Amino acid sequence: MGPRRALAYAQRNRPRFVEELKEFVRFPSVSSQPHHARDVRRCAAWLAAQLRRIGLDGVQSIATRGHPIVYGAWTRAPDKPTLLIYGHYDVQPADPEEEWESPPFAPAIRGNDLFGRGACDDKGQLLAQVKALECWLKTAGALPLNVRCLFEGEEEMGGGPNFAAFVGQNRRALRADAAVMSDTRMLGPNRPALTYAQRGMVRFALEVFGPREDLHSGNFGGAVMNPVQALCQILNGMHSSDGRVAIPGFYDRVRAWSERERAFMARSGPRDEEILRDAGVKAGWGEQGFTLYERLTLRPALTLNGISGGYTGPGLKASIPAKASARVSIRTVPDQQAREVEEMVRKHVEKLTPPGVTVRLRLLGSSEPAVVDRGHPALRAASAAYRLGFGVRPVLLRSGGSIPAVSLFREELGIPTSLMGFALPTDRIHAANERFHLPNFYRGIDTCIWNLTAAAALLRRGRSTDRAARATPR
Amino acid sequence: MGPRRALAYAQRNRPRFVEELKEFVRFPSVSSQPHHARDVRRCAAWLAAQLRRIGLDGVQSIATRGHPIVYGAWTRAPDKPTLLIYGHYDVQPADPEEEWESPPFAPAIRGNDLFGRGACDDKGQLLAQVKALECWLKTAGALPLNVRCLFEGEEEMGGGPNFAAFVGQNRRALRADAAVMSDTRMLGPNRPALTYAQRGMVRFALEVFGPREDLHSGNFGGAVMNPVQALCQILNGMHSSDGRVAIPGFYDRVRAWSERERAFMARSGPRDEEILRDAGVKAGWGEQGFTLYERLTLRPALTLNGISGGYTGPGLKASIPAKASARVSIRTVPDQQAREVEEMVRKHVEKLTPPGVTVRLRLLGSSEPAVVDRGHPALRAASAAYRLGFGVRPVLLRSGGSIPAVSLFREELGIPTSLMGFALPTDRIHAANERFHLPNFYRGIDTCIWNLTAAAALLRRGRSTDRAARATPR
Repeated sequence: MGPRRALAYAQRNRPRFVEELKEFVRFPSVSSQPHHARDVRRCAAWLAAQLRRIGLDGVQSIATRGHPIVYGAWTRAPDKPTLLIYGHYDVQPADPEEEWESPPFAPAIRGNDLFGRGACDDKGQLLAQVKALECWLKTAGALPLNVRCLFEGEEEMGGGPNFAAFVGQNRRALRADAAVMSDTRMLGPNRPALTYAQRGMVRFALEVFGPREDLHSGNFGGAVMNPVQALCQILNGMHSSDGRVAIPGFYDRVRAWSERERAFMARSGPRDEEILRDAGVKAGWGEQGFTLYERLTLRPALTLNGISGGYTGPGLKASIPAKASARVSIRTVPDQQAREVEEMVRKHVEKLTPPGVTVRLRLLGSSEPAVVDRGHPALRAASAAYRLGFGVRPVLLRSGGSIPAVSLFREELGIPTSLMGFALPTDRIHAANERFHLPNFYRGIDTCIWNLTAAAALLRRGRSTDRAARATPR
Repeated sequence: MGPRRALAYAQRNRPRFVEELKEFVRFPSVSSQPHHARDVRRCAAWLAAQLRRIGLDGVQSIATRGHPIVYGAWTRAPDKPTLLIYGHYDVQPADPEEEWESPPFAPAIRGNDLFGRGACDDKGQLLAQVKALECWLKTAGALPLNVRCLFEGEEEMGGGPNFAAFVGQNRRALRADAAVMSDTRMLGPNRPALTYAQRGMVRFALEVFGPREDLHSGNFGGAVMNPVQALCQILNGMHSSDGRVAIPGFYDRVRAWSERERAFMARSGPRDEEILRDAGVKAGWGEQGFTLYERLTLRPALTLNGISGGYTGPGLKASIPAKASARVSIRTVPDQQAREVEEMVRKHVEKLTPPGVTVRLRLLGSSEPAVVDRGHPALRAASAAYRLGFGVRPVLLRSGGSIPAVSLFREELGIPTSLMGFALPTDRIHAANERFHLPNFYRGIDTCIWNLTAAAALLRRGRSTDRAARATPR
């Protein structure tokens, strides 16, 4: 029995699926903002109810020290391989809210796009995977292979410890032969992409403290070190003028890739002008000797995500502020190690700190980079599914982003992840007016339906279906 | 008739004066925040009512393009000199509000201090001058000399154009022989100070624009110039590593003072350790070869008053922000000129701006530095008044601050200003928990009472009392 009936069911139910996605987006499940903790919980409960309704077993919203993990499985085919489906139901903060054309948590359809925070990242893409399961279960009464759904509520916090601890503690109960997630980008509406590499991330909060309290800049300006000035000095010392990261030792472990790999990337990946167009800038920047695509994927990067200190509102506050702070994230690549990078940053910041201020550097989270063999059966299955769902062969891409689950699944479960994204470069994820292109939602569901068939055929069944496979994680 | 009865009246009425100061502080007259415009107007009306009540003539709250100017005069002694009393009833913004122990606009007395935004800067000091007039008028029925009160509502905006235009247009009607204001610091509770020099100020808003909108830092980090990074680079380029301002030509016009003047300053001014203690820092910073007091007064300084860009709230927003901005103020000294300094800054910023971003530099306001001859009769009168009011001779100090009215009065009215301040270094002006030391309010009133007598005796009557002197400004 092929997926024909599942695909027909998908087509018939599109309007309802969109309504359900709108329900999902309506929860302001901003994991990083404590005042939204209840919204995150309510969103998890909604998602668990979804999984129950489509017919998964053992569905639960599992409490952690942070936000809940939503789990559900269908493991009734002991002779078939097992696929772990990952996604995250939490979202980025919505600010600056005033830049949204419609409120971030009041999903609105304009043209072919559904607007709302999380519409694309990752609620819409996650739901495409869930709806594919529904289409199978409601038409065939079964899935072509075993499936475990594992949906996180802390992904946008950037590698929080709770999800990692949970996976580590439930290695046996989570056994699978491969993982799949939809949380990455295509190149354009008809140009699907399968992502086989991710950068890691090491994130810091950097605070600079000067005088006990804000000082009048007339009475003290010129005789007291200013924390904003010290912060600018430190942050300016993070890069050298050639666009490279200036932290000593930073590039020591960065892998040099073969000319063959770079040639593959040049053929398959976006050209400089496409990246600049997507970014909305005229000129590129960064390390010489690499294409922009290489700078974003093969090469590490240090980004200043935010800075604040003193007063920048209307009018004047003529003060030397008592403190200033910044957020810094580093995207790492093989074979850099988060732990080592953290140490290098600490030493460098210490060296750059001028007298008269003190500095606090806090590690906010980290994840390691990950690369999946392009020839792995999970990726071949996903590629076949894209050809059937979108009508074209996907390009195999590296991503500059970081999804901690990818390296986590490799390290803890020993499985690769195929990154089947349905986001467009223009979907403005993490920005105001985030949107999800609804045709990608529909074709995404079809592609996920096909992926279950293809993965059932291509994945080798490992230990995923032994006794432990029927266990439920706790 | 001496000031004895006026002084007795002052002592009797202290509790009421404090209540009136609390009323005054209750107005959130934050001139730089547009949403407080109505509060500023209401505060001006309250102040005008005060002036009427104490017996001044021609009292009016004069509308400008910005906030009102409050005027009132007593010019019934044609054979006496005229004193222009200046002050400002507007205040700094109160933020960060969460750092206040009691709400900034709910004045509260703890110990000997009245807490509230503007309690010291400048409402309490301004009111000391007004109450001195009341004490004379309510006891003697006259003042020992002619007086014009001119109270501004835009001082904390840092040299706005409206007050300057008003003074320029009313040169004749504002004729006086000297000006006095109370808006500067003493060295300590029993160490009064008379300020004879002020720095000028040139203030800018600097904005850096990068991508059209915030970008995902995974997808674009390492290939696109980051406005926060560009801003840090530009701001870091404002100083050289030796603590000097790195803008070419910046020091060309800075006056070299005589060894005699520097020796006078060393004798009379605060020592390095006092300045560090007041600032609450362990080590000083800045230009080598000068004491901290000299760095704050004889030497110019560039201060980064604020910076913002991207997200620094709880959790993570992994973005390259679309823009970043900063506030920069430069304190100038003789013989620097605001206009020239502005041009130098523009050129320097342009030179420091990296490719891939655009920069907007907006001049927010400027005022010129001012120095008053220490032997001028107005300063001798003030010095005598301090001796009588505080029981000790005041030190003659330079201030690092900038009160645009001082250079304005010199340029437009041709008169010097004596800066009779009653603020303590610990009064936290411009910071959270601003306070006014009430014993300084009481002794300040006494000192102002004495100053009217002394100025009447010492000031030479100029053209201030000719026909024009009875005119009223418009």
